[in-house]
Amino acid sequence: MSAKEQKLHLNAFLYGTGHHEASWRYPDAKPELGLDIRYSQQLAQTAERGLMDSVFLADGYAGRSNKLEPFTQLAALAMVTEYIGLIATVGTTYNEPFHVARKFASLDHISGGRAGWNIVTGAQSAAFNFSRDEHPEHSDRYHDAEEFVEITKRLWDSWEDDALVFDKNAGIQFDNGKVHEINFKGSYYSVKGPLNIPRPPQGYPVLVQAGSSESGKELAAKTAEVIFTAHQTMEGASSFYTDVKSRLAKYGRTPDQLKILPGFSPILADTEAEAREIDEELNGLTATEEAVKRLSLRFGVDLTQYPIDGPVPLHAALETEEVNGHKSRHQLIVELARNEQLTIRQLVNRLAGARGHFTFTGTPIQAADAIEKWFRNGAADGFNIMPQLLPSGLDIFVNKVIPELQNRGLFRTAYEGRTLRENLGLVRPSNIRAAISNQI
Amino acid sequence: MSAKEQKLHLNAFLYGTGHHEASWRYPDAKPELGLDIRYSQQLAQTAERGLMDSVFLADGYAGRSNKLEPFTQLAALAMVTEYIGLIATVGTTYNEPFHVARKFASLDHISGGRAGWNIVTGAQSAAFNFSRDEHPEHSDRYHDAEEFVEITKRLWDSWEDDALVFDKNAGIQFDNGKVHEINFKGSYYSVKGPLNIPRPPQGYPVLVQAGSSESGKELAAKTAEVIFTAHQTMEGASSFYTDVKSRLAKYGRTPDQLKILPGFSPILADTEAEAREIDEELNGLTATEEAVKRLSLRFGVDLTQYPIDGPVPLHAALETEEVNGHKSRHQLIVELARNEQLTIRQLVNRLAGARGHFTFTGTPIQAADAIEKWFRNGAADGFNIMPQLLPSGLDIFVNKVIPELQNRGLFRTAYEGRTLRENLGLVRPSNIRAAISNQI
Repeated sequence: MSAKEQKLHLNAFLYGTGHHEASWRYPDAKPELGLDIRYSQQLAQTAERGLMDSVFLADGYAGRSNKLEPFTQLAALAMVTEYIGLIATVGTTYNEPFHVARKFASLDHISGGRAGWNIVTGAQSAAFNFSRDEHPEHSDRYHDAEEFVEITKRLWDSWEDDALVFDKNAGIQFDNGKVHEINFKGSYYSVKGPLNIPRPPQGYPVLVQAGSSESGKELAAKTAEVIFTAHQTMEGASSFYTDVKSRLAKYGRTPDQLKILPGFSPILADTEAEAREIDEELNGLTATEEAVKRLSLRFGVDLTQYPIDGPVPLHAALETEEVNGHKSRHQLIVELARNEQLTIRQLVNRLAGARGHFTFTGTPIQAADAIEKWFRNGAADGFNIMPQLLPSGLDIFVNKVIPELQNRGLFRTAYEGRTLRENLGLVRPSNIRAAISNQI
Repeated sequence: MSAKEQKLHLNAFLYGTGHHEASWRYPDAKPELGLDIRYSQQLAQTAERGLMDSVFLADGYAGRSNKLEPFTQLAALAMVTEYIGLIATVGTTYNEPFHVARKFASLDHISGGRAGWNIVTGAQSAAFNFSRDEHPEHSDRYHDAEEFVEITKRLWDSWEDDALVFDKNAGIQFDNGKVHEINFKGSYYSVKGPLNIPRPPQGYPVLVQAGSSESGKELAAKTAEVIFTAHQTMEGASSFYTDVKSRLAKYGRTPDQLKILPGFSPILADTEAEAREIDEELNGLTATEEAVKRLSLRFGVDLTQYPIDGPVPLHAALETEEVNGHKSRHQLIVELARNEQLTIRQLVNRLAGARGHFTFTGTPIQAADAIEKWFRNGAADGFNIMPQLLPSGLDIFVNKVIPELQNRGLFRTAYEGRTLRENLGLVRPSNIRAAISNQI
């Protein structure tokens, strides 16, 4: 690896008052700012001050939530930042490729090339908000998603990069020979095109993927440039890393074309004792009963019928194959309970910090140690930073962990470029249509 | 009318380099800034300096265009303005009520209550970008739109205004008794709800309508709070105004609950002669051949087969009833050609300025005269200002026409409130669900 390739990539996963499910009850927390754009602007500016690659907003289309919609929110964040990438989850199952391709193109133009798309298929509960009787099966959703992404790429490519002419004398705004219909007819969608906005500055937004099931890994190997993934141990992360990177070759891709960023969900304080105190306080604030009910839904078994300080009744839980959605997370949780022989209460507390992502409690130096260890042992190209408390957890990470990583030569001391692709070290994709035109 | 009610409302319709179709060829024009958010930020800031009620972005889902997508663009504009309303066209035929309700709610939260939705059904050419074989019929689209709007209202109302609790001690974020499923099952959509974002600051975004066909007028009378409309004469505007206002009573609405804003598309200069010069220069830059082809499509007859300086062959044109989409505009153009006995070239030039909207060439004082006359004669509650040249036309309007209107007591000298509703003098809609809960 060259010196440049040895740098970490760091994403800041913004998530209300923090990733710990009880974070909103913490004394400092201001959950009433969930819809206040100034709150997330400050978080994005903090992450940019730390030279982080990107901020990320998760999303879904059902349930009660107290947060803004990602496209509108990220466009607003673009106005108060200059370098940091802006990644949004957008699901494929209940959207149209034309709308999604266009909104990402617009966000990419507005931000000067900083958009990223976390591609998910979507959750079961959304079906009923979109006139559907049922949620499609896992593999069906993945085939749909594959076609969906293919269409968006063709739409972004429907404008060649030099299609805009603006020749006032000749009266020509667009070179019509460089704006193409795509005439896509697939199993799920047919889309004529062209897109009604010119090609994004980055060519395509950076394509991110978060599913880690078998189909998720395969789709990622084929199309993703960044993976957000959840692992409880360095060994698990490392074997996932090796597995996914080894799948790239068959799609003609090299390992550096895909950055794997496991979740890293810290509670940080100047001393270990202080950090542990925060952790205990947060666990004390966790609504255990509610969490047991949620876990019951995931496992398909009513856990309230079992003693909370007894073992997790894994024999009664659904098999991963029976689950439609969040398959890999299901598997991770089952393995966590089995490998560490957890009680129901212990499992609930382990999941409260970051829903199955790797949690960490300690000092900034210890956090840097953990990050360096995973990175040097081939378990990660960087991390998806998920502070259990926000904004304080991001402040400490940027003020104390990042300088330590910089001192160790593991993280940038200035942005490499202005676009997210440039900072992630990803090439701008060439235009398929332009390549075809040139052959003719 | 009270003194307050006598004030005009003014919207700035942002449209690339201006509403004249040849504006981009004008010497000063910078069409290459179409995707540069700083360009539209400056326009929005100019309109806000002029205390205008709102800016408006038209939209569609097909064709070649060099502009940003409205939700992302308006969210970005919200960050550099404080008072001005932010109105976007969003079509119903190729969208989902859940997505649209949510994005407007998010924009309304981000902007502190400044969002407006121009409800359109959508154009024929979009069908092929959304896996459809054909565009639904006019009346079918309107029934769909009516149901669509009804669902969005119920989704915005699915959160009562006081549903957010954040009681840290009790561990309650939302009062679940105040967040409701809507369980809507209609002819076109079924949507369970609730929406996944709390009720917008304005209750609903301001609802705008632009169709002026029979079904358009009826939908407007039932649901719209602002109408954008096109008229070539004060008499035509006045009879439209009377017609629409008279339809309100049957829906239990009063005339002041709907603001009618005809388009006003000026070329302004300090002397009439200078303004005429600009007009002639723009007409000289118009690509007449292209415009004749577009008019041929609208009329369903190949006009290039007729002498360009001969009369418009209206006997060969489609009847308005035969047109599927833009019905009222079709009728306006046919009547314009008939009443003024125009040649093909004359008609093309008349449409070049603003596609059928009222065009005006003269000084700021003359513009104020025209505006005052329409307003005092019951033809308008205000105007949709559509400068034929941008940014210069908006600069002159704000610097010279608005002060003249203020001197005449016709326009505000300070914003009345912080939300678009407050500035338009529209009440915040009460929550249907809260009303039901209170009855029980």
